[in-house]
Amino acid sequence: MRILLGIAYKGTAYCGWQRQKNGLSVQEVLMRAWHTIADEAVTFHGSGRTDAGVHALCQCAHFDTACAIPADKIPFAFNTKLPQDVRVLWAKQVPDTFHARFDVVRKTYVYKLYYGPHADPFLYETQAHVVERPDVDKMRRAAGLLLGEHDFRAMQATGGHVKSTVRTLYHIDIAEQGNQITFTVCGNGFLYNMVRILVGTLVYVGWGRLSDQAMQTALLQKDRKGLGKTMDACGLYLAQVEYPQQ
Amino acid sequence: MRILLGIAYKGTAYCGWQRQKNGLSVQEVLMRAWHTIADEAVTFHGSGRTDAGVHALCQCAHFDTACAIPADKIPFAFNTKLPQDVRVLWAKQVPDTFHARFDVVRKTYVYKLYYGPHADPFLYETQAHVVERPDVDKMRRAAGLLLGEHDFRAMQATGGHVKSTVRTLYHIDIAEQGNQITFTVCGNGFLYNMVRILVGTLVYVGWGRLSDQAMQTALLQKDRKGLGKTMDACGLYLAQVEYPQQ
Repeated sequence: MRILLGIAYKGTAYCGWQRQKNGLSVQEVLMRAWHTIADEAVTFHGSGRTDAGVHALCQCAHFDTACAIPADKIPFAFNTKLPQDVRVLWAKQVPDTFHARFDVVRKTYVYKLYYGPHADPFLYETQAHVVERPDVDKMRRAAGLLLGEHDFRAMQATGGHVKSTVRTLYHIDIAEQGNQITFTVCGNGFLYNMVRILVGTLVYVGWGRLSDQAMQTALLQKDRKGLGKTMDACGLYLAQVEYPQQ
Repeated sequence: MRILLGIAYKGTAYCGWQRQKNGLSVQEVLMRAWHTIADEAVTFHGSGRTDAGVHALCQCAHFDTACAIPADKIPFAFNTKLPQDVRVLWAKQVPDTFHARFDVVRKTYVYKLYYGPHADPFLYETQAHVVERPDVDKMRRAAGLLLGEHDFRAMQATGGHVKSTVRTLYHIDIAEQGNQITFTVCGNGFLYNMVRILVGTLVYVGWGRLSDQAMQTALLQKDRKGLGKTMDACGLYLAQVEYPQQ
């Protein structure tokens, strides 16, 4: 039986989603929890990796089990065994042909940023901090230029290994509340560190340190150095993973 | 020169405000930071203690210094030396007769609670979690009965050592947003664990496990066991400290 999970986690204490030799991963705490619950060693196939310190409002992952526990009881079983910073939100049975990574059609990331003279002692693990407010109208205008299909190679950090760097962005929403700015970015896929570079680029535009035209030129010329800096991992959340027929 | 500070901290990593032999306190990290800044060993006199895991949106504390650094530069000096979960929000010179503890006229605490089947991996250090929603109207009605001057001995945990257990509560505000409930409690002073017991009592009323009358009877009879449980430290924030002529 193949089960798909929705999982939320605060990534601060983890080396990321993916299992690694050095450091505790979210994948590993799920494996340990399930081993305790069902005495099975299973593998959790995530929709994709998240880096160290990156959070998830809803990561999706599937696994195969011989255990007869009803799907709607699975979240409760997990949450009694998992550490407090990882929660299984829901579980449902999916066809055996379903794959949490290969079947993704859209992903949405959220990036949270706040500005002000002093960093906030309650937000330092879950939002990025900048001193100066970036202009939101300028950022929205520049974000509009990134929508649609583009070669985003300039927004890929070294370490990415993909055949094609062409991706489609469906929408970029930028909301400001008090001194907090939330970026919501939806696309058919993302390159390594793409959202953090994209937000860093928009912030540079918002500060007037980069023009719309310079941004577009860097993108066309696949010139990483012509864009903004990679924003901190702590502000990034994998927010939604969409599959066909859901 | 006597300086009054406004300090915000996330209390999760600390044994509380007060310096202790075992465990790191907020007082101690302030002392260490100031020693680095001004090469002075000073004592920080807080408006009162906060327990392990309790937070502050604005704790107040004074100290005496011979250092000539202008008051408006002091927060920046501190914040480059302090850990990320402690921030000095403001600093101002006060008369040498001012005392951060003895001059308090009102204090306001905030208690944050959320409800739902699963705990939230982003809130477990900064809000208390309950599964069942307590009825807010019932809690507001019971809160109204606690306003004014009462002997709150029934709401004092063992370990409190004060001459009088009579206190005056000025207002209790209860706000619900989504699945989060925020209690704001303002009074002329609070007994040991009083806010956590007060909120626990209101939650019991909200669940229908305690009637208004039973609550009032327990209060009159100074019967701790007749009230609700002491809520977790992680939901409590010292929010505001008020002094005369401010």
